[in-house]
Amino acid sequence: MPTSADRLTALRERLAVASHLSQASALLSWDQSTHMPPGGAEARGRQMATLARLGHQHLTDPALVEMVDALESDGLEGDERALVRETRRVLDRALKMPPDLVAAMTRQRVRGRQVWERARREDDFAAFAPELRTMIGLTREQAAALNDEAPAYDVLHDLYERGSSAARVEAVFGPLRDDIVDLARAIRESDVRPDTSVLRRDFPEAAQEAFAVETVRAMGYDFERGRIDRTAHPFATTIGPGDVRITTRYQRNFLPSALFGTIHEAGHGMYNQNLPAEHADTPLGSSVSLAIHESQSRLWENLIGRSRAFWEGAYPRLQAAFPGTLDDVPLVAFVAAVNDVRPSLIRVEADEVTYHLHVMLRFELERALVEGALDVADLPGAWNEKSRELLGIEPSDDRDGCLQDVHWSWGMFGYFPTYSLGTLASVQLWEAMARDLGDLEGLVRAARFAPILEWLVEHVHRHGSRFAPEELLERATGGPLSAEPYLRYVRAKYGALYRLA
Amino acid sequence: MPTSADRLTALRERLAVASHLSQASALLSWDQSTHMPPGGAEARGRQMATLARLGHQHLTDPALVEMVDALESDGLEGDERALVRETRRVLDRALKMPPDLVAAMTRQRVRGRQVWERARREDDFAAFAPELRTMIGLTREQAAALNDEAPAYDVLHDLYERGSSAARVEAVFGPLRDDIVDLARAIRESDVRPDTSVLRRDFPEAAQEAFAVETVRAMGYDFERGRIDRTAHPFATTIGPGDVRITTRYQRNFLPSALFGTIHEAGHGMYNQNLPAEHADTPLGSSVSLAIHESQSRLWENLIGRSRAFWEGAYPRLQAAFPGTLDDVPLVAFVAAVNDVRPSLIRVEADEVTYHLHVMLRFELERALVEGALDVADLPGAWNEKSRELLGIEPSDDRDGCLQDVHWSWGMFGYFPTYSLGTLASVQLWEAMARDLGDLEGLVRAARFAPILEWLVEHVHRHGSRFAPEELLERATGGPLSAEPYLRYVRAKYGALYRLA
Repeated sequence: MPTSADRLTALRERLAVASHLSQASALLSWDQSTHMPPGGAEARGRQMATLARLGHQHLTDPALVEMVDALESDGLEGDERALVRETRRVLDRALKMPPDLVAAMTRQRVRGRQVWERARREDDFAAFAPELRTMIGLTREQAAALNDEAPAYDVLHDLYERGSSAARVEAVFGPLRDDIVDLARAIRESDVRPDTSVLRRDFPEAAQEAFAVETVRAMGYDFERGRIDRTAHPFATTIGPGDVRITTRYQRNFLPSALFGTIHEAGHGMYNQNLPAEHADTPLGSSVSLAIHESQSRLWENLIGRSRAFWEGAYPRLQAAFPGTLDDVPLVAFVAAVNDVRPSLIRVEADEVTYHLHVMLRFELERALVEGALDVADLPGAWNEKSRELLGIEPSDDRDGCLQDVHWSWGMFGYFPTYSLGTLASVQLWEAMARDLGDLEGLVRAARFAPILEWLVEHVHRHGSRFAPEELLERATGGPLSAEPYLRYVRAKYGALYRLA
Repeated sequence: MPTSADRLTALRERLAVASHLSQASALLSWDQSTHMPPGGAEARGRQMATLARLGHQHLTDPALVEMVDALESDGLEGDERALVRETRRVLDRALKMPPDLVAAMTRQRVRGRQVWERARREDDFAAFAPELRTMIGLTREQAAALNDEAPAYDVLHDLYERGSSAARVEAVFGPLRDDIVDLARAIRESDVRPDTSVLRRDFPEAAQEAFAVETVRAMGYDFERGRIDRTAHPFATTIGPGDVRITTRYQRNFLPSALFGTIHEAGHGMYNQNLPAEHADTPLGSSVSLAIHESQSRLWENLIGRSRAFWEGAYPRLQAAFPGTLDDVPLVAFVAAVNDVRPSLIRVEADEVTYHLHVMLRFELERALVEGALDVADLPGAWNEKSRELLGIEPSDDRDGCLQDVHWSWGMFGYFPTYSLGTLASVQLWEAMARDLGDLEGLVRAARFAPILEWLVEHVHRHGSRFAPEELLERATGGPLSAEPYLRYVRAKYGALYRLA
């Protein structure tokens, strides 16, 4: 008669197989985005579809389901209970997904991304449209399979942010939108005009890379358990415990792209590098949600990387990395330039204030696409119109418009709102950290990042999926997610930078 | 009632799953050797063990066995018959291997290689010895599981060279050894002493890489379906049809290492790039044996890459690649230098004549290790003694001795003889090609490699595993494998280079 401990051991072994398959898939995907020769593309789709199908088969094996049923009756406590609870979540989702749909989505992801990359390069939305239409159809099927009683968009959004919904996103976005629009207007009307042309000088890529590597290494991203590669659309990925990679892209004539992009991805990477090792290869050892993930990347990128305190310490090093290039730019002008607020076309290069408007645009359009209120053929027009409405500007081509992000080609609908939710959470965590650690600016100025990373490990990373996102945040900060800390932060920071009343 | 065609379709689908798993494993392995951060090592072993086990489970599924049983009764002809025959070979092997042994070997391969890499770097055989002992034990188990009536070494050697045996290897090596020893002695006693120091000048790695890439591209290695990365121990690997990668290592002060190493691996790569696409993801679409594989790498590396005709075309380009470095070295001196024959310690850098002595050394020692006649602890001493006996020189440390090759750490016993068998086959193919194409030297001099590659595709590559190695060679060359073409070739080439009687 197997004991509860026997069952837990057997459960962990089975979960490890699923985990190894998804890690192999992560490597196939990383490779596709970084090193794969063009001729590998076709087979890559088939390979990933096979691995996804086997992982799905494995998770839906009746023996595994029985094991979880039994463990739920075992009256477990603490982490063991949480492990079974998280396994049940994953199982439920897998059991509801037809294997053919899993395989079809995997194939379409690979195909869709290939076509998207070419379409983006050649500004050819028409080439991408059929792939997008196919993917929307598949995600609708997915939503129906998972929960045919809830609105499709809510079901999809919940995949990335458990417990959240379109209504919750709207509830957060409504007031946020007004306040941001007010702040952006005040900034626009101020007399301060940072000279951002200093960021568009000649910054050789090798020096950019060396500076970025040195920066994220100092922050705590561990290169013994990670690496940086170049890609078209940067991401962080976990190939295994002890192997968490980040990617970046360099623009020789635009410094912030690789610099803040690398810090951002390193923020994701540090979260993954510090997940609980004792729960590796189980759902309990995974990150809990995309908003919490984004809170980590945004905290390092914005609260630290774009702060005046950070550059008080780091600016001389940056000047030395590009000899002669920034000698005539005082610290205060550089800090103003990297915090310039103005409506722009590219989300990943948007400032902290208007960034949310990019997310709101995507949220509204992807919801309409999923619900059928917007046809794929009308997307470019709708994008441009919405861009004008929210940002006051309009892209001149689809490359800088509806083709700029990889997400939809990859079937990720309901993902974008997590960027804004995560940004709000990042400031809330920062305020809580300041209560515990005191002078955060002093630490950042001195490049003493260890206490900051330790606080994040202690309150966020090491918990994996032990607590639901909201509970995690409440335990870490003392309250539920709120936009107030973010609004306090941007008002204070940009009030000072733009000398607002 | 399923037809024979239905069964073939179902068979191909099932074989594709196994193929995708092994392609994902190939990527995990490639990544481990090229890009993986150190922290990834531990999980990498578990990931690869899981994939190997799933592949094994898949191949031993009774439904697949039944399918093959039925297809064998279907009276198929041609390629369909060959597909079923090759599938049976793979199935039989898989069915005989206990799943736990498969997983244990996969784990030990990864672990053994990690330890070997460190041991080699630090010249620490004692650190590697326990891993080697474990691996020898596992390969003995493997041999017994596959065929407990044949000698273990024969069973292992047959994994790489079907139909071959230790006795056959000895039968080839016996006379070859005497003739090589005679030729090497005559060369040593000649008055000609090529100045090999010209190969040890300063050759910046970037220029080496550019020249090697240009060279193998001209030969026909397709970079749209492949790439080159750096590694410690070069290899070629197939990540999928359309994605065949090669690796190399650069030594700034030793030109031949990367140059001929890259051509060698590209020879392997071109074979894999030209396997029959219509049989991709099946055993019929795979290369047929290691000796045939090596015949391709050796043909490009030696018959072409080290020929005077090749350098008559390529030498000005090489001189231009390293401005000023080789201006004082006439073509004839360069060709003599890259064909210098002298006993050396490192197999992969050995000349065409003494290379076989390196293989004979390993053949004798690995056979003794597998049979238990040699204990692992005594390997360094036995290696050094055998090196003195065969090559007349002895390594000063194990780095240049028994730790130099990756093979044993990876559990590959019985593999080394295929290097020599392949070298013999390469010259036999070259003679047959000359009968068909005429002036091969003229083609090589003019860098007109397309007819040569086409001949190899036609007579070797496109057949995959359609014919057994011996039949393939006989069809291509008109006779069974023989050392005579090789001996004719080296006597003529080195007779001229060293002005022998």
